[in-house]
Amino acid sequence: MQQNTDIRIGYLGPAGTYSEEAALLFSQQIIGASVRPFSDIHAVIRAVAEGQVERGVVPLENSLEGSVNITLDTLAHDVELFIVREIILPIRHSLFAKDSLATVKTIASHSQALAQCRRYLAQHYPNAAIRAVESTAAAAEMVANGLIDAAIASTRAGQLFGLRLLEQEIQDTYCNQTRFVALSRQPETAGATKMSLVCRIRGDKPGTLYDMLSEFAKRGVNLTRIESRPARTGLGEYIFFIDLDGTMSQPPVAEALRMVAANSLWLKNLGMYATNQPTR
Amino acid sequence: MQQNTDIRIGYLGPAGTYSEEAALLFSQQIIGASVRPFSDIHAVIRAVAEGQVERGVVPLENSLEGSVNITLDTLAHDVELFIVREIILPIRHSLFAKDSLATVKTIASHSQALAQCRRYLAQHYPNAAIRAVESTAAAAEMVANGLIDAAIASTRAGQLFGLRLLEQEIQDTYCNQTRFVALSRQPETAGATKMSLVCRIRGDKPGTLYDMLSEFAKRGVNLTRIESRPARTGLGEYIFFIDLDGTMSQPPVAEALRMVAANSLWLKNLGMYATNQPTR
Repeated sequence: MQQNTDIRIGYLGPAGTYSEEAALLFSQQIIGASVRPFSDIHAVIRAVAEGQVERGVVPLENSLEGSVNITLDTLAHDVELFIVREIILPIRHSLFAKDSLATVKTIASHSQALAQCRRYLAQHYPNAAIRAVESTAAAAEMVANGLIDAAIASTRAGQLFGLRLLEQEIQDTYCNQTRFVALSRQPETAGATKMSLVCRIRGDKPGTLYDMLSEFAKRGVNLTRIESRPARTGLGEYIFFIDLDGTMSQPPVAEALRMVAANSLWLKNLGMYATNQPTR
Repeated sequence: MQQNTDIRIGYLGPAGTYSEEAALLFSQQIIGASVRPFSDIHAVIRAVAEGQVERGVVPLENSLEGSVNITLDTLAHDVELFIVREIILPIRHSLFAKDSLATVKTIASHSQALAQCRRYLAQHYPNAAIRAVESTAAAAEMVANGLIDAAIASTRAGQLFGLRLLEQEIQDTYCNQTRFVALSRQPETAGATKMSLVCRIRGDKPGTLYDMLSEFAKRGVNLTRIESRPARTGLGEYIFFIDLDGTMSQPPVAEALRMVAANSLWLKNLGMYATNQPTR
């Protein structure tokens, strides 16, 4: 439990989204923290960089949809911020209406949530008109305002807008999780078990990637994720995002990173941080 | 030059998009080929799989925006198609109006094209209202219909809608290329110099990725790209898309692939194909 007051935590709004849930989960660890919504991921990150908020919680990766490129690219190219916490959130969708209904004729949600409940919808509501809107929370609000019969949203969104639960856990797959990170202007490494970095290695052939991976492999450093993104300098030229188990206080990690940095055009430490998941 | 007649080539429409340019470039190699637009990438791929068209041209990767995930995921999980050709297209944006104008008050284009010309627009049209629409071709059509003053689009779109060129090559960076692939129900390997595959390797730690890369590295097989995507089975579980220089007719490539396949839960050959780019 950190002893801070007046810590403002930005997140991708509006209230009732899964991003808000992640921000609230993070805020419970900080005394005197409050959360505030922003309209898009870029605005959250910029608000942290410019000091409008002290922390920002943004999605980094989803187990079905993959990386959130805007988050990766902004961290790599546009700001100097640190990841100070990883928050992994299971995504569980429920169906809500305003009151009990004879028939549900219209259903709204975010397009990803609709896609993730496609089988359920086809089975139980084959004749309903399905409408994609900008967020699960916006869909819940539309139901509260009588604009649509039912919404797919989180339990919290249903409560927030005083809706009636029709059915819970309607997603087609149970392995749906989103990985959020909390960002800050200063590093914060208490309890850190993981770290993230991004680098542009010299040479553009994945033979070079192989050489880089060998620096970790031969020291027994476990990488939990590697993701390539365009270097923005030409087709076939990439930067690599790396997550690993461990921190710079462990000599094998520090040595591997020194070697990788020596063979990189640039390497950026994105932070050492604690996670709400048990380390594998 | 292939001796085929009645080869229908699907692409992401409408006419005047960069996708159409790639499809037209591909069609020039096939006698009797015609191109037809589809409304989205998934529809193009499905049309090939279901036999409505013989080939489909879809974007796979852009040098600024990265992978086109819908293309990768559909090829990996949903269809059994082969890449039969790679088409790399430089993306060059121009500014078009209907007639000569005293002032340009409104400018429309696809959001990516707008982003890629941001510096130019800020410098030359700081007071214009900028509007994002569904495609560069749609923006050109809006100008032709008098709905907006100017559009950022390709030279072909400007010609197609009879527009007046205000300025050409207005993009902020000159390394903007998109890599398209042509898909078919049957493999077609004449002139092939590259191949693509997707696999789910056993074990989910990137130490396993390192082992896989070593199969290629120790045989001197040059990988031109590696891209991870969610395996859709849980956070931290990935499939890998691999592009390499060479084909199965070369023993080192065939051997490496046999080893990788033996250590994979599954491996899918996405095709051996010719490219319009010189091999690096």
